[in-house]
Amino acid sequence: MTREQLFENIKRKQSFLCVGLDTDLKKVPQCLLERAKQEGAASGTDGAGFDPIYEFNKAIIDATAPYCIAFKPNLAFYEAHGVKGWIAFEKTVKYIRQQYPDQFIIADAKRGDIGNTSKLYARTFFEELDVDAVTVAPYMGEDSVTPFLGYEDKWVILLALTSNKGSADFQQATLSYPEGETTASATRERLFEVVIKRSQQWVKEVSPRGGLEGASSECLMYVVGATQGSAFSDIRRLAPDHFLLVPGIGAQGGSLEEVCKYGWNDHCGLIVNSSRAIIYADSTERFAEVAAEKAREVQQQMAAILAAHR
Amino acid sequence: MTREQLFENIKRKQSFLCVGLDTDLKKVPQCLLERAKQEGAASGTDGAGFDPIYEFNKAIIDATAPYCIAFKPNLAFYEAHGVKGWIAFEKTVKYIRQQYPDQFIIADAKRGDIGNTSKLYARTFFEELDVDAVTVAPYMGEDSVTPFLGYEDKWVILLALTSNKGSADFQQATLSYPEGETTASATRERLFEVVIKRSQQWVKEVSPRGGLEGASSECLMYVVGATQGSAFSDIRRLAPDHFLLVPGIGAQGGSLEEVCKYGWNDHCGLIVNSSRAIIYADSTERFAEVAAEKAREVQQQMAAILAAHR
Repeated sequence: MTREQLFENIKRKQSFLCVGLDTDLKKVPQCLLERAKQEGAASGTDGAGFDPIYEFNKAIIDATAPYCIAFKPNLAFYEAHGVKGWIAFEKTVKYIRQQYPDQFIIADAKRGDIGNTSKLYARTFFEELDVDAVTVAPYMGEDSVTPFLGYEDKWVILLALTSNKGSADFQQATLSYPEGETTASATRERLFEVVIKRSQQWVKEVSPRGGLEGASSECLMYVVGATQGSAFSDIRRLAPDHFLLVPGIGAQGGSLEEVCKYGWNDHCGLIVNSSRAIIYADSTERFAEVAAEKAREVQQQMAAILAAHR
Repeated sequence: MTREQLFENIKRKQSFLCVGLDTDLKKVPQCLLERAKQEGAASGTDGAGFDPIYEFNKAIIDATAPYCIAFKPNLAFYEAHGVKGWIAFEKTVKYIRQQYPDQFIIADAKRGDIGNTSKLYARTFFEELDVDAVTVAPYMGEDSVTPFLGYEDKWVILLALTSNKGSADFQQATLSYPEGETTASATRERLFEVVIKRSQQWVKEVSPRGGLEGASSECLMYVVGATQGSAFSDIRRLAPDHFLLVPGIGAQGGSLEEVCKYGWNDHCGLIVNSSRAIIYADSTERFAEVAAEKAREVQQQMAAILAAHR
């Protein structure tokens, strides 16, 4: 999906909401677990039997698709169930692809390894699974990230400044260079700022649109937690055109208004994720209906913000 | 496995070799792929049919187990084959556990997410799969790492200074603190050094042996690339007692002698990984035999180094 298509979807649906499919069997409504018991739980790779993870996802996807422009399954929740979880993950991605081809699918995997190995991860997510985007951790540097770049219309979403408390430990630490320079003339930047600057250079070297103005904002986004408040302004100085993937509203306590106040750009530039506050809003048989209501509430707030920025 | 047991295994087997199970169907000997064609490739979760990834692993494990003390499957290679790959991974871990209970099993996953999600990854790897150790990426800070700590006799192997070129991008960048301090009195350390120092503090807070002298070296290792040469000395100043997992000898060009010169401690303190140079040393029907020869060569070098340090 191109940046323009993404922005078109946002305008058409009056929403920049991403629904996080963090599907946990411990939180899935009892009614689904009971059906799995009665009908026989899914086993085998043929997809026979009742798979409560996949059925939960399908119901949530159908209910919330009118109000969101993206879905983001976090791999941890699927790996937790081993082979069965992996099957549910693949089926979920296929279902979204087939039923809702305009939805942007983010594999929240936070992968990153030496070049050869990252190449394999990229092939898995972009060629085999055909998701639109994958989250990548930057700690291992350029050759761990570039194999994910250079796929046409596919996106890398690089961890920059995450929503958790631990984001203060390293991401916000101040780097000073050139090394050995101890005077006030040294350049001083926080690690997440250096990640954002350098990664844009990497795109220019490997992207199919390499060297073109704006190439990096065509295939690269950054994860910036909704809990980071005014840091969004600092990030917009370094990445004015990029989309940002923003987790942390809802259960984690970030504010949609604040995110938009500091993070907005002229094509919205924000994909705001909510997981638990939507998908686990209700644990009865009405779970999907209530999830739709919650997603619609957020969408309405987003529509108002979009109108205000017109 | 405790640190003492690990050291006992090293002394008994005269080896500190880890064999990396980076099993790639494109590199697996033709004879295995042909058998899969003839006998019918494995499908289904019941494990029926011939699974060339698992069969390759079994042959390599049986051949090299006498010469190594650890096996390290890298998850990327298994995820690349989706459900089938995940099945092969689980079967491989079970096989090692059952046949070679004294082998240390490392899931090379490089995971790391917000606290709640890291907790799930930890449960998957330590409780469901029952591996001994998992590699973890530190970018997201304390709450992304601590859920992996606190499992008795299980290990976190934190990425510190990796073997790839990109390790220079962020890991070796100089941090300066307290923030705003621009004079020579500011503390200046490289990111990997800060990761090593802080993570030892985290262990003291959450480990079952928390607060005890040496607690952090009981459940925490660091990844340090064999290509990093004298940086091992800097790391030993900060982590004198810890085991280091060292990838990068063989195909990546690191030197075993150099690693031992700078990284050795009084209980060896090194687990040196080799993947491609051992498992793909031969692509005929003799592949396992040749892998054994290659593993034995490395083990012999290691035995000589152990003898020299006695």
